[in-house]
Amino acid sequence: MLLLRHCRGLTRVDLFKTQRVQLLQGAALPVAVCAGSLCARWGSSHGGHKSGQYQRSHGPNWRHALAGLLAGTGAVLAYGLHHSQTEQAATTIVQPIAPASSLPIYTQDEVTKHRSVEEGVWVTYKGSVYDITEFVSMHPGGDKILLAAGGALEPFWALYAVHSQGHVLEILSEYKVGELSAEDRRKQQSVKSTDPYSTDPERHPALRINSLKPFNAEPPPEILSDNYITPSAIFFKRNHLPVPQVDPKSYRLQVEGVSGGAPLSLSLEELKTRFPKHTVTATLQCAGNRRSEMNKVKQVKGLNWGIAAISNATWSGARLKDVLLAAGYRPEVAQQTSHVQFEGLDSDVTGTTYGASIPLNKAVSEEGDVLLAYQMNGEDLPADHGYPVRVVVPGTVGARNVKWLGKIIVSDEESSSHWQQNDYKGFSPATDWDTVDFKSAPAIQELPVQSAITQPAEGAVVERSAEEVTVKGYAWSGGGREVVRVDVSLDGGRTWQVAQLQSSEKGQVPAPSPPPGRAWAWKLWELTAPLPPAAQELEIVCKAVDNSYNMQPDSVAPIWNLRGVLSNAWHRVKVTVKEDEEEQKLL
Amino acid sequence: MLLLRHCRGLTRVDLFKTQRVQLLQGAALPVAVCAGSLCARWGSSHGGHKSGQYQRSHGPNWRHALAGLLAGTGAVLAYGLHHSQTEQAATTIVQPIAPASSLPIYTQDEVTKHRSVEEGVWVTYKGSVYDITEFVSMHPGGDKILLAAGGALEPFWALYAVHSQGHVLEILSEYKVGELSAEDRRKQQSVKSTDPYSTDPERHPALRINSLKPFNAEPPPEILSDNYITPSAIFFKRNHLPVPQVDPKSYRLQVEGVSGGAPLSLSLEELKTRFPKHTVTATLQCAGNRRSEMNKVKQVKGLNWGIAAISNATWSGARLKDVLLAAGYRPEVAQQTSHVQFEGLDSDVTGTTYGASIPLNKAVSEEGDVLLAYQMNGEDLPADHGYPVRVVVPGTVGARNVKWLGKIIVSDEESSSHWQQNDYKGFSPATDWDTVDFKSAPAIQELPVQSAITQPAEGAVVERSAEEVTVKGYAWSGGGREVVRVDVSLDGGRTWQVAQLQSSEKGQVPAPSPPPGRAWAWKLWELTAPLPPAAQELEIVCKAVDNSYNMQPDSVAPIWNLRGVLSNAWHRVKVTVKEDEEEQKLL
Repeated sequence: MLLLRHCRGLTRVDLFKTQRVQLLQGAALPVAVCAGSLCARWGSSHGGHKSGQYQRSHGPNWRHALAGLLAGTGAVLAYGLHHSQTEQAATTIVQPIAPASSLPIYTQDEVTKHRSVEEGVWVTYKGSVYDITEFVSMHPGGDKILLAAGGALEPFWALYAVHSQGHVLEILSEYKVGELSAEDRRKQQSVKSTDPYSTDPERHPALRINSLKPFNAEPPPEILSDNYITPSAIFFKRNHLPVPQVDPKSYRLQVEGVSGGAPLSLSLEELKTRFPKHTVTATLQCAGNRRSEMNKVKQVKGLNWGIAAISNATWSGARLKDVLLAAGYRPEVAQQTSHVQFEGLDSDVTGTTYGASIPLNKAVSEEGDVLLAYQMNGEDLPADHGYPVRVVVPGTVGARNVKWLGKIIVSDEESSSHWQQNDYKGFSPATDWDTVDFKSAPAIQELPVQSAITQPAEGAVVERSAEEVTVKGYAWSGGGREVVRVDVSLDGGRTWQVAQLQSSEKGQVPAPSPPPGRAWAWKLWELTAPLPPAAQELEIVCKAVDNSYNMQPDSVAPIWNLRGVLSNAWHRVKVTVKEDEEEQKLL
Repeated sequence: MLLLRHCRGLTRVDLFKTQRVQLLQGAALPVAVCAGSLCARWGSSHGGHKSGQYQRSHGPNWRHALAGLLAGTGAVLAYGLHHSQTEQAATTIVQPIAPASSLPIYTQDEVTKHRSVEEGVWVTYKGSVYDITEFVSMHPGGDKILLAAGGALEPFWALYAVHSQGHVLEILSEYKVGELSAEDRRKQQSVKSTDPYSTDPERHPALRINSLKPFNAEPPPEILSDNYITPSAIFFKRNHLPVPQVDPKSYRLQVEGVSGGAPLSLSLEELKTRFPKHTVTATLQCAGNRRSEMNKVKQVKGLNWGIAAISNATWSGARLKDVLLAAGYRPEVAQQTSHVQFEGLDSDVTGTTYGASIPLNKAVSEEGDVLLAYQMNGEDLPADHGYPVRVVVPGTVGARNVKWLGKIIVSDEESSSHWQQNDYKGFSPATDWDTVDFKSAPAIQELPVQSAITQPAEGAVVERSAEEVTVKGYAWSGGGREVVRVDVSLDGGRTWQVAQLQSSEKGQVPAPSPPPGRAWAWKLWELTAPLPPAAQELEIVCKAVDNSYNMQPDSVAPIWNLRGVLSNAWHRVKVTVKEDEEEQKLL
């Protein structure tokens, strides 16, 4: 039966601490999380599960919610994972676990009876049967594990490559309760398992990959700030699911829920020709940008983004407002409804699609500039960025800019998706996974003011003979609030200098100041300052101010949150000043 | 002639430092500023002034701008002044300076020839003549001093009671160049000087006065948080000029500048009956709220506000949008014009009125809720709050909520007033009065997220036997961003607890959540927490988060700015834990 480890003396925090060295050395986070989770089950028991049928009567809402959790955060599941690690794992680590002859044989029918916590949660993997009932509450990805209940793990693990690692199998092996009957093993093997990511597009080799499946990657910071408009190829990629293959000829965009209007269905051609083409330069930022800095304070759940999960592009398409008007939307409707939901065409094995919503007033505002974009930087949207149509919600967190857009629903409710309800929300540093109530915080929409240093890099060496140092970076704020100033310090924040702001490509005539509340694009900034005479090390710090005069918080710990989102403390980079050899001789 | 002090070794900062003790002991800031200014003139010379006529050809724009500067910030001129000090100064300190017989006699005509820096700036005060040319650039209140050029100081000093202090006369005496002719002295004395503040209303005795003339005062913090809706009598008062006496029967509101529309003139009755009455609960905050905390880092210019230059009221009136539509405004106009200017009926001796402007899109937005308010908390506006009509611009700094409203001008320019152009702007901590370029920063409109602790007070004593401590405060953010969380720390920011938010009077049913972007009212908050076992002192800290997830900065120094505005760092209060006598005996 199950090995019940007793580790009363160890708190989860302690475990995180002991695992941190391992993490910094490149090990993936799930090790820490799962270890913590396994230890946490010291008080639970394995008995008391009754047999019973899977309750179909839970209905589509339940299924939808759980499926959302499953498709859930690649964030939660795939963090810290590196391309090469994944490839290696897929080819070498994943091996069938050898049958232990002492265990009973079960048929698929018997396994299928165990599909809930009440009846026990059984799964199969490569011919073995596992009772994972007790692991459900400890699963780093949450309840989504229940979707595999009563069946095979393989199709789910194919979706989240993070499972293909040795330690995951090690955890699973502790829950083994039997073998699948020979007949059912043959049936399973006859179902060819395909990789849902096999049709994902080629990517630029410069990208730093945080997760391969789903694909999440950011450009190197020093390349990011080379262009005011980020080239599409290196624009950060943040996928929650496999990239769907959409045929532009058969593509239809559905618009529903407009009170008094009829459902509207638009072809790509109709979207392009029936509505005026509107172009907006807008910066998108992942809620998890700079999460790695929070990880240094205390481990969080999520992809370990550096400072480059943010990019700036020119987007063209139909205004959402115009499409909603064509679907029958009238301002009076705003009294009854207050959200516009989006569904992507990217889906998990259950068919649940990525989803999100934005407030109706943003969607229909003349000044909201929300686009149903079919072009990025003057060309068709790349596959990774939502071909053929994505939503662009300027000033709003990346997660609401739904890609591969399939459906728009005007509603009096927010999207019920996992990403709207149980992810992408901010909490107090006092809130942990035991106390978190996702209903208590609003879904992130507008993002706070942000800036970071893209050059020099942490640990860089500056020659004393250069006499000065050039610092570069980006700054942006959500909600259309324009960045009006960036302060830079070379001495850890004791003294400050004001950087030069740049709101167009270098050498081009600067764009005129945007109308109030519509500053959707970032500013790049630069400061060249004399090297402080005596300093052997510079702690370079930047902080931005937007035109509501919101400032970045000074430090990370007080804004730390369990999902590692909204990481916008002052950005700090330490560099060494190298004395010239001649001067060194004199010293 | 003038005494030219040499103090090369002293920087202004050093001067500020040496004066700080004096300041903390209650001396008014101008001592420090003027001392610094006087020392700063070591390099200038007195010669080279030519005689000439006052250039009327500067025209009304010049006059307007300068007058704006004069009427300028009571802030700049009246800081640190306390009621009793003022009263005392007015009655005892102000004495005519004894004539020095060795100095030449001038006629008023000769004095009148010196009205510019080029021709020399002469003024008279109680029968003596002063050449203040060199002092102009050092005047804490800026160029506004030029309005008195060629004439008597008395009417200007009557407007700003801060001048009625001994050290001001001391500075003036150094610039004395002669005596006014006996005939002209007689003429001057026949012009009875009246106190423009004599008709100011009675005020509530609980108010803590920062400046009596103009009147600026805030309620005690512990009273402030007793009511969700601040009673009008203790709502903070922030006047820039004397309270004007407006006859409601003859009152007219002028609306101008609407492209394609005709000027509109409305009586109070018409404003109340021609337009729907709209009610909004909105918090107003002075840009200088919490300035006193910046003063502790390094002296700034401005009224030494505590944490209570913020209050919350219910305002009723016509929507500005509706009035602009009645004046012929059409959305197409938004292409050409971008600001709405307001002129108050409060004016200085030159007739220049208080003025400010807001962006047109805020003014005409269905969701902007900008009011021409004639009621506050269900009654006629009190005199101090703009009777009979004021602008209420929810989510926007107090300074744009123009009181005693006389004129509305739709324009392609911001207000040219002093308060829009050369005040109420934020700068880097690196910017000082020598380097500041007011054009380089945007006029403050929306304010950043804010919170403060109203209870317990700094230095309070908590009994150990109470076992717990209750902390109360307010939290608010500009731009209609709703406060979604307040974190409270009892240990200086190391650990945090989440406070309970309150969005209505205690015991009342909480108001429903406002629509997105229209959370104009503050939240009160409260936390009752166990006393930390060993602590002898608690450093209580609060920080708020709004629904754009903007946070307050950790510390004051990095957001310090020369005008001391936008002071929204974490608020900190230290209290002592008093052990019970019995327990103390045991120790």
